[in-house]
Amino acid sequence: MADQFPAALRSLIHELSRLPTIGHKSAQRLALHLLKTNPEQAQQLAHALENLHSGVHFCKRCFFLAEGDLCSICLDPRRDPTAICVVEEPTDVIAFEKSGAFRGRYHVLLGRLSPLHGIMPENLKIQELMARLEGDEHEVRELILAMNPSVDGDATALYLQKLLAGKDIKVTRLGVGMPMGGTLEYADELTLQKAFEARR
Amino acid sequence: MADQFPAALRSLIHELSRLPTIGHKSAQRLALHLLKTNPEQAQQLAHALENLHSGVHFCKRCFFLAEGDLCSICLDPRRDPTAICVVEEPTDVIAFEKSGAFRGRYHVLLGRLSPLHGIMPENLKIQELMARLEGDEHEVRELILAMNPSVDGDATALYLQKLLAGKDIKVTRLGVGMPMGGTLEYADELTLQKAFEARR
Repeated sequence: MADQFPAALRSLIHELSRLPTIGHKSAQRLALHLLKTNPEQAQQLAHALENLHSGVHFCKRCFFLAEGDLCSICLDPRRDPTAICVVEEPTDVIAFEKSGAFRGRYHVLLGRLSPLHGIMPENLKIQELMARLEGDEHEVRELILAMNPSVDGDATALYLQKLLAGKDIKVTRLGVGMPMGGTLEYADELTLQKAFEARR
Repeated sequence: MADQFPAALRSLIHELSRLPTIGHKSAQRLALHLLKTNPEQAQQLAHALENLHSGVHFCKRCFFLAEGDLCSICLDPRRDPTAICVVEEPTDVIAFEKSGAFRGRYHVLLGRLSPLHGIMPENLKIQELMARLEGDEHEVRELILAMNPSVDGDATALYLQKLLAGKDIKVTRLGVGMPMGGTLEYADELTLQKAFEARR
């Protein structure tokens, strides 16, 4: 298919179609777009790709994305050092930052427990979290377990709750219920059930 | 937004979101995916992008995409030199090749007439088509005008028909009507009208 295309174009289409949510047809459209526009745009994208892995590291403390050893949040002296919000992925940090709901620090687990997929506690940054609490961050007073409301997310939160039991730290989880702006008519049954249980 | 991301990641997200149909959220997801996977994949994509413009040219004869001076179709001695199918874009050539409906050569206009967008005959490869017919391809006996069935496509075809009038060349256009596998119920009115007019 499309064997008549020059090799350089076929190779770009192939590489683009390896990306998630980009099928062969989309990859072809994107490649032809890049071919039509200014060659500079393709070069700039190539340049950004080349510098990606050398320019991005995991924060040595919280495993959010960082340029150097520590991320911009860990480096910010205005963040409250007594509260840590534990999340699954770096994108979750971004979601919280956008909401402005939290002014403490984060800990990114880089995943969630999922025995079915072979993801056990030792594959997540759980040891590192415990080390933070016992190390120089002994002033932490609250830990917010902000896993996603899913089976794996719940399992991860429960595991952490057990691990933290006995420590002199307040462990909380995110509130569940109706999303703001949602309508009862379109809410799924589980969300309605949880919202009912969490009624104030 | 997402200012907490390292600069290298922000720059990749910015470049990706410049592509058509890729918004900021998709660009973020793609960039994070590339960050998580093997660094080699990002490098291979970068490499393909860098080689794109140097490895792809327009065929000097038909303006389809080519690795060298002429495209693979123009170089193929088995193609019928007496018929030329005139299309708007290189992707149209691929569509015809996939269908296997045509064994002649092509001429890609690289666009369609659109005075509203400032696209006039001199912006398309029309002069070059006329030069082909008058030059060493004087044996051409049929020209199929395979523009898209749109206002601009029709205008382009009509312009070419006028230009070609008087020449000893059979000028045809694609048949219009119901698409195969289509249902009357879901066909639009214009297609039904045209199908009715084109009844056999």
